[in-house]
Amino acid sequence: MKDKGLLIVLSGPSGVGKGTVRKAIFSEEDTNFEYSISMTTRLPREGEVNGVDYFFKSREEFESLIQQEKLLEYAEYVGNYYGTPVDYVRETLDSGKDVFLEIEVQGAQQVRKKFPDGLFIFLAPPSLSELENRIVTRGTESEDLIRNRMDEARKELEMMNLYDYVVENDKIELAVERIKAIVVAEHCRRERVQGRYIKMLEAGK
Amino acid sequence: MKDKGLLIVLSGPSGVGKGTVRKAIFSEEDTNFEYSISMTTRLPREGEVNGVDYFFKSREEFESLIQQEKLLEYAEYVGNYYGTPVDYVRETLDSGKDVFLEIEVQGAQQVRKKFPDGLFIFLAPPSLSELENRIVTRGTESEDLIRNRMDEARKELEMMNLYDYVVENDKIELAVERIKAIVVAEHCRRERVQGRYIKMLEAGK
Repeated sequence: MKDKGLLIVLSGPSGVGKGTVRKAIFSEEDTNFEYSISMTTRLPREGEVNGVDYFFKSREEFESLIQQEKLLEYAEYVGNYYGTPVDYVRETLDSGKDVFLEIEVQGAQQVRKKFPDGLFIFLAPPSLSELENRIVTRGTESEDLIRNRMDEARKELEMMNLYDYVVENDKIELAVERIKAIVVAEHCRRERVQGRYIKMLEAGK
Repeated sequence: MKDKGLLIVLSGPSGVGKGTVRKAIFSEEDTNFEYSISMTTRLPREGEVNGVDYFFKSREEFESLIQQEKLLEYAEYVGNYYGTPVDYVRETLDSGKDVFLEIEVQGAQQVRKKFPDGLFIFLAPPSLSELENRIVTRGTESEDLIRNRMDEARKELEMMNLYDYVVENDKIELAVERIKAIVVAEHCRRERVQGRYIKMLEAGK
């Protein structure tokens, strides 16, 4: 009668600090979801361990996995592939555990199509809310600078459309706390809890 | 540019421990929502303070408030009225603060009609999930007892329909933690955050 786990997807604009937040989440002892390790064709950097930081693969291996549809999402950056192996994700979710992905926005779009019920969290740069102060206290910065920032903000707002939640990365500890709260809350959603009880009553008949 | 506060409604079957959980929430220092004190026509019990535990009113005063539509919800129990003064709730929400109500299920139904966007949390008795073990390990209890409990569970499942979240009151600390997580998560919902940013950009034009 065990429920399937939740697929938690953390994404956001590049440079927002997704990796740092993800590492902070998994450095805490009470984190009870599983991190899905990405696969890449880039060479390991010093200190990086295969199966811990990434699964390191050759280009041929990676392309063969793409053709076998063994990747939940993938993308090419600066000549290297990055992707999420799908089997691990499906097996872990089936076992009732939550799976956590930290991926780029393009990847998140691919995952949304395959897992519409996933929990999609957008990590937003603090510049977005700092913009508010800048707008209010105009004069300290040039109109051009403010206008550029507003254009950027508009693009980020557009990106958010795919997501269920937006977490501002103002302070890492706060971002971590919010992400963990979102996961706890999501497990308490009525449809989810009620569904479990209904299955339980069916089983008891 | 301040957002309206969230209306948080904690309810559930009588005897589930709503009052205990509410007191535990407000005994914590980092709780940043306001408790809406109920109004009642029953006499103060020893140690109860007017304006702290309840607003104590005469029957005439209470009925006059009902007629003036000054109550967000009310009900009569064992010959006494209990209700929520609406002005405090509206003013506090308008000031951007979250308001917390702890009320009976009938009251929650009335509030849902007036505040469809409220955050409705159902506090569920642990007996519901304990039932699962009982069903699985049949034999230790009579079939009649199990069947009665299942009937009760069905009623509780029906009650839940109105709510957004279900929190099991297995341990007070856990229930408190879940409720606080739900409030944090709700503030991160994309529509809410995006709406705030959009207003901000509008203001910056």
